[in-house]
Amino acid sequence: MDLHAALEEIEENIKTLQFPNSPKELYEPITYILSLGGKRVRPLSVLMGCYLFSQKYLKAMPAAIAVEVFHNFTLVHDDIMDNAPIRRGKPTVHEKWNKSTAVLSGDVMQSYSYRLLDNLPNEIVLPILRFLNIISIGVCEGQQLDMNFENKKEVSVNQYLKMIELKTSVLLGASLKIGAMVAQAPEDDIERLYKFGKNMGIAFQIRDDILDVFGDEKKVGKRTGGDIVSNKKTILLLYAYELANSAQKKELDYLTNHSHSIPNEEKITRMKEVYRELNVQQKAEQLIQNYYSEALQQIHAICSTCYEKETIINFFSKLIGREY
Amino acid sequence: MDLHAALEEIEENIKTLQFPNSPKELYEPITYILSLGGKRVRPLSVLMGCYLFSQKYLKAMPAAIAVEVFHNFTLVHDDIMDNAPIRRGKPTVHEKWNKSTAVLSGDVMQSYSYRLLDNLPNEIVLPILRFLNIISIGVCEGQQLDMNFENKKEVSVNQYLKMIELKTSVLLGASLKIGAMVAQAPEDDIERLYKFGKNMGIAFQIRDDILDVFGDEKKVGKRTGGDIVSNKKTILLLYAYELANSAQKKELDYLTNHSHSIPNEEKITRMKEVYRELNVQQKAEQLIQNYYSEALQQIHAICSTCYEKETIINFFSKLIGREY
Repeated sequence: MDLHAALEEIEENIKTLQFPNSPKELYEPITYILSLGGKRVRPLSVLMGCYLFSQKYLKAMPAAIAVEVFHNFTLVHDDIMDNAPIRRGKPTVHEKWNKSTAVLSGDVMQSYSYRLLDNLPNEIVLPILRFLNIISIGVCEGQQLDMNFENKKEVSVNQYLKMIELKTSVLLGASLKIGAMVAQAPEDDIERLYKFGKNMGIAFQIRDDILDVFGDEKKVGKRTGGDIVSNKKTILLLYAYELANSAQKKELDYLTNHSHSIPNEEKITRMKEVYRELNVQQKAEQLIQNYYSEALQQIHAICSTCYEKETIINFFSKLIGREY
Repeated sequence: MDLHAALEEIEENIKTLQFPNSPKELYEPITYILSLGGKRVRPLSVLMGCYLFSQKYLKAMPAAIAVEVFHNFTLVHDDIMDNAPIRRGKPTVHEKWNKSTAVLSGDVMQSYSYRLLDNLPNEIVLPILRFLNIISIGVCEGQQLDMNFENKKEVSVNQYLKMIELKTSVLLGASLKIGAMVAQAPEDDIERLYKFGKNMGIAFQIRDDILDVFGDEKKVGKRTGGDIVSNKKTILLLYAYELANSAQKKELDYLTNHSHSIPNEEKITRMKEVYRELNVQQKAEQLIQNYYSEALQQIHAICSTCYEKETIINFFSKLIGREY
């Protein structure tokens, strides 16, 4: 499967999406947010999931586009809740327009994403629609947990993993699964592919936490340490709290509770020092390894040819930052 | 059909709706908004729409509850956009919790409403789900038009009618239609019932505008003149602008542009005086009559027994404030 060609097909399909002209306040933000780009991981996953069981992966395109519109709906609403001014270098929808527009355009995007599924063959629409709708409830739960964590003093590693599973990973797994559903793959294989994607998704999120602190700024494309500055409860901070002795705990409390009195650079340096003392990066790497292995085990159990699996495995391996 | 018994069944079904315990910040607002009551016009309409073609109207209950949850989702999001502090005498969701919770709980309500449709027989789920999803896009468009009107200087009567059709009436028509779809009624009759409900819905909204100005405060249960005080673009104000001579137009402009310098009671009295001079109430009553007649024509064309039609006709006739 030529991923580059598939990505071009996806971009073309997104570009030619037709929304009504009026009311323009409702529809312009949809075209805007979809035009901001991104890696299109989810629609690509839909196509790859289909390709694993059927060479005609383009028949999954309506589902791929539906999932991307759905994902962007969650971004528009998340940005309102997170008060985020910037998304992919551009103003977020509620910044460029206003909060009411962002709420309403988001709502209509969810409905439109479901409607796009109608372009699939009739007999597979209902199970896919039902499944995406259930996933959407999970994604909302994940976002709620994420917001709760901000004000919660103690969050365990397990609670954190549950949150990223719901907020990020289920939709990744779902994308692959939906592709396989379009290809009418065997039930067992569909579930294995879902678990593959979910595990890869969790691994990806953990990698994200690591890169934000220990990444190469040139490769990551942004300043590191942002999560430390904003006191975000990443896997690294949660591990640190779990492993800290009383002196280290005091330092962690001091760094997270006195944000304003400590210069950012000093805060980052001191936090990284605690992380190094406690080997939290290694712990997180081990966790990635576990999820990665579990993911591989799932995909290897699928009865499909090796070559096709390699495409998916390579794609996700690169995504979580390891190329083997 | 015993509407009182049907209403009790609806309340019982709403009361026993099960949502997950966690995250409670996500699910508590749903139970809360659904517990605030209301006339349950939409779920009753679903059951009535089913009863018209099938005596076993309880089989439409999953659809009735789904539509009520869907309607309450739109209320939660509308209240955010309208900055409304009170709904049915109680704090709105974004007031009692916060805006993020209201956005997210609303999102999950939409998905839950779709999910409730799964309790219908398999073969009718997809068309109903598709239809409700298309309606949801219309409702969003109506809400956007309504928001646009607030800042728009000139709104025509036709634009206003299009707005209330989308914002209020299509969901009323859809409720009846969905009931008829559950009963697997003939296509033509389903469409007639939809048009009946849509026309009644528009008539209902116009009645609402009239009652806010000319209603009997004891019967309406609230102070009249609220729409005049808030400069709401009601059908009466739009008619007044259409019919006013230059002196009356000046008075209308003065009353709507100098809200703060005119005491509320004086503003209401002067506005009602212009309305009386221009006979706008009569014009609006005529419009109600037109929509009402169109609605009756539609339902009379349906091939169903007279007695069952009377239940629906009486219900909606009462709703729009005329009992014949």
